[in-house]
Amino acid sequence: MRTSLCDRFGIEVPIFGFTPSEHVAAAISRAGGMGVLGCVRFNDAAELDAVLSWMDENTDGKPYGVDIVMPAKIPSEGTQTDLNELIPPGHRAFVDKVLKDLSVPPLPDDTDERAGVLGWLHSVARSHVDVALNHRISLIANALGSPPTDVITRAHDAGVPVAALAGKGSHAARHVDNGVDLVVAQGHEAGGHTGEIATMVLVPEIVDAVGDRAPVLAAGGIGSGRQVAAALALGASGAWMGSYWLATEEYLQTMPESKAMQNALVEATSADTVRTRIYTGKPARLLKTRWTEAWAAPGAPEPLPMPLQNLLVSHAHNRIHAAADPSVVSMPVGQIVGRMDRVRPVAEVMADLVRGFEDTVSRLDKIR
Amino acid sequence: MRTSLCDRFGIEVPIFGFTPSEHVAAAISRAGGMGVLGCVRFNDAAELDAVLSWMDENTDGKPYGVDIVMPAKIPSEGTQTDLNELIPPGHRAFVDKVLKDLSVPPLPDDTDERAGVLGWLHSVARSHVDVALNHRISLIANALGSPPTDVITRAHDAGVPVAALAGKGSHAARHVDNGVDLVVAQGHEAGGHTGEIATMVLVPEIVDAVGDRAPVLAAGGIGSGRQVAAALALGASGAWMGSYWLATEEYLQTMPESKAMQNALVEATSADTVRTRIYTGKPARLLKTRWTEAWAAPGAPEPLPMPLQNLLVSHAHNRIHAAADPSVVSMPVGQIVGRMDRVRPVAEVMADLVRGFEDTVSRLDKIR
Repeated sequence: MRTSLCDRFGIEVPIFGFTPSEHVAAAISRAGGMGVLGCVRFNDAAELDAVLSWMDENTDGKPYGVDIVMPAKIPSEGTQTDLNELIPPGHRAFVDKVLKDLSVPPLPDDTDERAGVLGWLHSVARSHVDVALNHRISLIANALGSPPTDVITRAHDAGVPVAALAGKGSHAARHVDNGVDLVVAQGHEAGGHTGEIATMVLVPEIVDAVGDRAPVLAAGGIGSGRQVAAALALGASGAWMGSYWLATEEYLQTMPESKAMQNALVEATSADTVRTRIYTGKPARLLKTRWTEAWAAPGAPEPLPMPLQNLLVSHAHNRIHAAADPSVVSMPVGQIVGRMDRVRPVAEVMADLVRGFEDTVSRLDKIR
Repeated sequence: MRTSLCDRFGIEVPIFGFTPSEHVAAAISRAGGMGVLGCVRFNDAAELDAVLSWMDENTDGKPYGVDIVMPAKIPSEGTQTDLNELIPPGHRAFVDKVLKDLSVPPLPDDTDERAGVLGWLHSVARSHVDVALNHRISLIANALGSPPTDVITRAHDAGVPVAALAGKGSHAARHVDNGVDLVVAQGHEAGGHTGEIATMVLVPEIVDAVGDRAPVLAAGGIGSGRQVAAALALGASGAWMGSYWLATEEYLQTMPESKAMQNALVEATSADTVRTRIYTGKPARLLKTRWTEAWAAPGAPEPLPMPLQNLLVSHAHNRIHAAADPSVVSMPVGQIVGRMDRVRPVAEVMADLVRGFEDTVSRLDKIR
């Protein structure tokens, strides 16, 4: 399964694995792919710095990358205190009522509660870039498309290529115009922030839109060797997978309290996701649970714009997480969740992807 | 591009082309695929009979099929007059107002207006089966999943296999339990009636759900050889394409008044579709135009259930069709519309699909 990306990035298989878990990211890199650590959960740059030092030491010298969340245009932003004042009381009351209705208990008094996720804030995302460039990273990916051009220039000056997610051909072309080196074509079926155009249509559209100016990774709906082969058939040079790693043993090493979430994912079918603005304010695909259903019920308020919506629900997320009730999980995941039927080690997932890809290409060769 | 379906159906390439145009269907069959004529537009069984006689004579002895619209459970249904009484006056007033706002003129006084499409009615769909079984058909496909088992038995007694569309693995397994011979796995990105699960996820899910009990065709998002190769990589034995044939020269032979619609399709991007209940009462993907936008605007009524919604809008469809304004088209089409960039002969489309498939498999073979 060698494409041009293997030589370019020094990896054995062109599978890029996005994950918020450093244990998963390191395992993906050690298994021959490119582990890409999501930075959005790190409010404190020093914490990210420590985790990247751990990555440097636990990837056997193999390449790894980081994923940031940064819009191309720099938004005006206030402090967290200012922003909290912009949240309407009715929205807070709704969240409180839903948590009560769903029997999600308050946090114990001694909980050292995380603040809301601030990685959505531009200043925090910039601190992630500052920290990451002091480590042995091989890629900066941006979940919101092309980062500001000065960030791209800084990355290039440090010899680090930049990847950008895109949900339309025209967006992908603009990213490459801005200097982006690698486009992630993320289809509607993907988890997290996602557009309307499905992977089957989007990948060739983006491949044709950027031509030979940038290689393309296919994202959305990929969790087997057949799907990797389909992605490469569509013209992608590799696959970008995010959801699938949530059901790995390594994920629990970083987030040991996530067993209920994993149980919910293992039970879910491909029909058990919903694309909604309730997680961040922008459309993102989540596992469909009693929490998402409450926001879809008649009388529920419209979600707030980014970054307010995530600030609104961050305390609820902490309570939901602590409650460990699989029916009230709040978790971004793609339609591929239907194929995540057990929790496995990362290396086993990677081996299955490679074997499945090879079997598929052999099968297609006979059809020709 | 030979799969097991080629021998089974006596076709050269495993591409099944659904179309309401007999000229397109015949051209697909003559070009080595399986042309499948949509019957829903034929209110009068005698008219279908005449068209199928034309198909018998214009397919060079090559196989062709028909597509019906029939739920597995027989619904209670009234006459068209009864049904018209169930349509709320407010809905009729809304349609009138929208047509006025969009400057869609009334039909000329001498127009011999078609009645609403009655093919959605069970009795009419049964008349289609009766007529079709008197012709040289090689397939009956049902757009609403498995037809009633007595219809399957009649088809099998006549030596005709039955195909059923499915949008979930569990539905596909049930269709095969009912005796269906071939499953069409139709993803979210497809035109017309469609579910929520995208082709990339749905096809392997359905292939695994039915196992070796039935071959699977992939539908939704297919309009190039790369996409056919992706479909086969996902485990399908062939492709089912519908939207793409709307932009063919042969389509105009059946529906010469469709030039404005074709112009609208050629201009559209993959982002210019919307999944809505306004066409039939069930979710179907349509070209996004000023007509669909009017139904999505604040204050628009909820669409009526099938079959009432289509009766409600059938006169509007006639007026819209006659108006020939590309901005007010009402037309089911999939996200692949973004790749339909000119009107071509069917044979040219088929040749491109085959060449693109072969190029893709050669490319994948080098990646291995």
